[in-house]
Amino acid sequence: MNIQNKLNFSRRIRRTPFTASVEKYGVTGFSVVNHTLLPKSFQNSIEDDYLHLQKYAQIWDVGCQRQVEIKGRDALKLIELMTPRSISELNSKKCLYIPLTDENGGIINDPILIKISDEHYYLSVADSDVLLWARGLAIGLGLNVRIREPDVWPLAIQGPKAADVLAKVFGERIHSLKRFNFDYFPLDGSSQLIAKTGYSRIGGFEIYLSRPELGTFLWETILEAGKPENIRPGSPNIIDRVEAGLLSYGNEMTVENTPLECNMDKFLDIYKEEDYIGKKVLLRQIKYGIKRRIKGVIYKGPRLPTITRPLQVFDTDKKTIVGNLTSGAFSPFFKNNIGLGMINEGYWDNNKEILVNINDQEFREGLIKDLPLIQ
Amino acid sequence: MNIQNKLNFSRRIRRTPFTASVEKYGVTGFSVVNHTLLPKSFQNSIEDDYLHLQKYAQIWDVGCQRQVEIKGRDALKLIELMTPRSISELNSKKCLYIPLTDENGGIINDPILIKISDEHYYLSVADSDVLLWARGLAIGLGLNVRIREPDVWPLAIQGPKAADVLAKVFGERIHSLKRFNFDYFPLDGSSQLIAKTGYSRIGGFEIYLSRPELGTFLWETILEAGKPENIRPGSPNIIDRVEAGLLSYGNEMTVENTPLECNMDKFLDIYKEEDYIGKKVLLRQIKYGIKRRIKGVIYKGPRLPTITRPLQVFDTDKKTIVGNLTSGAFSPFFKNNIGLGMINEGYWDNNKEILVNINDQEFREGLIKDLPLIQ
Repeated sequence: MNIQNKLNFSRRIRRTPFTASVEKYGVTGFSVVNHTLLPKSFQNSIEDDYLHLQKYAQIWDVGCQRQVEIKGRDALKLIELMTPRSISELNSKKCLYIPLTDENGGIINDPILIKISDEHYYLSVADSDVLLWARGLAIGLGLNVRIREPDVWPLAIQGPKAADVLAKVFGERIHSLKRFNFDYFPLDGSSQLIAKTGYSRIGGFEIYLSRPELGTFLWETILEAGKPENIRPGSPNIIDRVEAGLLSYGNEMTVENTPLECNMDKFLDIYKEEDYIGKKVLLRQIKYGIKRRIKGVIYKGPRLPTITRPLQVFDTDKKTIVGNLTSGAFSPFFKNNIGLGMINEGYWDNNKEILVNINDQEFREGLIKDLPLIQ
Repeated sequence: MNIQNKLNFSRRIRRTPFTASVEKYGVTGFSVVNHTLLPKSFQNSIEDDYLHLQKYAQIWDVGCQRQVEIKGRDALKLIELMTPRSISELNSKKCLYIPLTDENGGIINDPILIKISDEHYYLSVADSDVLLWARGLAIGLGLNVRIREPDVWPLAIQGPKAADVLAKVFGERIHSLKRFNFDYFPLDGSSQLIAKTGYSRIGGFEIYLSRPELGTFLWETILEAGKPENIRPGSPNIIDRVEAGLLSYGNEMTVENTPLECNMDKFLDIYKEEDYIGKKVLLRQIKYGIKRRIKGVIYKGPRLPTITRPLQVFDTDKKTIVGNLTSGAFSPFFKNNIGLGMINEGYWDNNKEILVNINDQEFREGLIKDLPLIQ
């Protein structure tokens, strides 16, 4: 363990209702997302956690996925304005991945939209203060909405056994929940929103706990119920995420990147009738094309440490920089190193040969890959 | 060192132009501010760093104080709208501390405003994405401004010897810079903005480096020049900050608190002619009074560790909670523990006796104190 990277705690780096539990169960490292602690490692290696996640169930403190609650007569109007995805047809009790764009078409955030009712939504956000963006827009436009961060804290149960575990806590009805749908389930006299969503390849559930004082109780109840399914504490896993092509805002893409560069055009509605911020730029970008896009890379072993700073990707001539890898790790599945990153036009075809610059001395041979690496 | 609080690095937690230097010089811990690394400790204790800061000079990587650049015909109009402080009379080359408020009068951030020219400003922000707030407002209101995060990274030189050190690098003219003023100074063929500002009691300078590729050169040049003044790497010091009554956004105050609760009314212009967001609420709060305000507390030794989670403050009856301490440490000056926090009406008088709840078992006697604790 590197003495150089202790995280200094303060009130400003918020704890979640589950932080005491992750500490009790041996968390070893955190990241900070939305001014909030995100557990990133426990006592096992990330490879061991990865293998466990593929077979069993894990409980993750993802309370850092803060909610931006938008409520009121103009709620739909505001959200339509914020995203190139059409949401007018979305039903209640549905979730939708909606990248938010700025006037340059750059991505502000890539939240999950949760439609509670026609005039009531949550945005479950990645790491940027969407709360301020939405409130600024609403004040400026004089919209009839109330926007706040509710006291709601997601807890994820992920992996192939997640449904079996939660059925014991919330009833068999959990099995009938479809992907990207949510419903309400009883917990200690309260009603809790549970969505069939999550940041893993196999997926699972996210419990949007609205009674933070029940955090420890909920954690312990699930952990106890899941013993037969070999449940254990975990966290979003870098190997699993890269194999699945799940992007991380701030890593693979920033406000400098448009949804087209992030392969999102397939499910967006760039041409949608409603006006939205960034529409002009995205329409132009569709017409004239993009110069880079996010791709996967599989490159040769032996095992390299998790990528913490972008690695340059070179043409096989070792001279031309053709992109970079922003996240990556060693994959036990591919028995090679894998990564995600922006790759320039002309180099992004599937199976294109490239070199990854490890440390300016060592270059590893690799292939560009379409995403996801594993379906 | 606690095995539980390693910080996991990724591209999303941005490095600054000085991160390589702080690593070279033995940083041991970081915090995360504005998605950016803030070094918080080196190999010395915070008490040793505190004593050093009072006598010599220190170099701090405060690149996490990201800039929000607002430029254009409506720049002044937008900034006036964002703050209860009047800025219409502010001259160029001046800095001003301007809390930003939301429609409830809650504090969004408490940046330093840097006036470059009548239509060109920087907001040097604490930990929240003011960039999104300002851009949301500007889009909503259709203002004629360009708002972006420029590639500018503050480096602080603080302590009584700061001017002597910088005079050797930037010339004797540095001595004539007045507090909360800035000017331009040459660096390797470029012109750099240096302000007489900083987050320490004694103060110093902040260099707004606009040529990030010069980061290591600037760091090494200053460290070399400052050898006779015993300069060394440091960071915002919790003891010094609490003694000086310097607030930390996210610690002492959040969006739940108004500037009146933070003793800011003295220098604000709540009644200013221009409209601003939150004006109605603040005018009402002036009329009806506030229920809590930030105060200092001095409480008995022996030395306690730095506060990382709020401590409750009790009335001497040990029953009534009258506030909490959100930041604090042991002060070698007072030879007692000191803290900052919100204290309820009826208990905030200078020298009021209270008890600080250390761990539900131990309560320490203390006194409420006006701020700053040391002038």
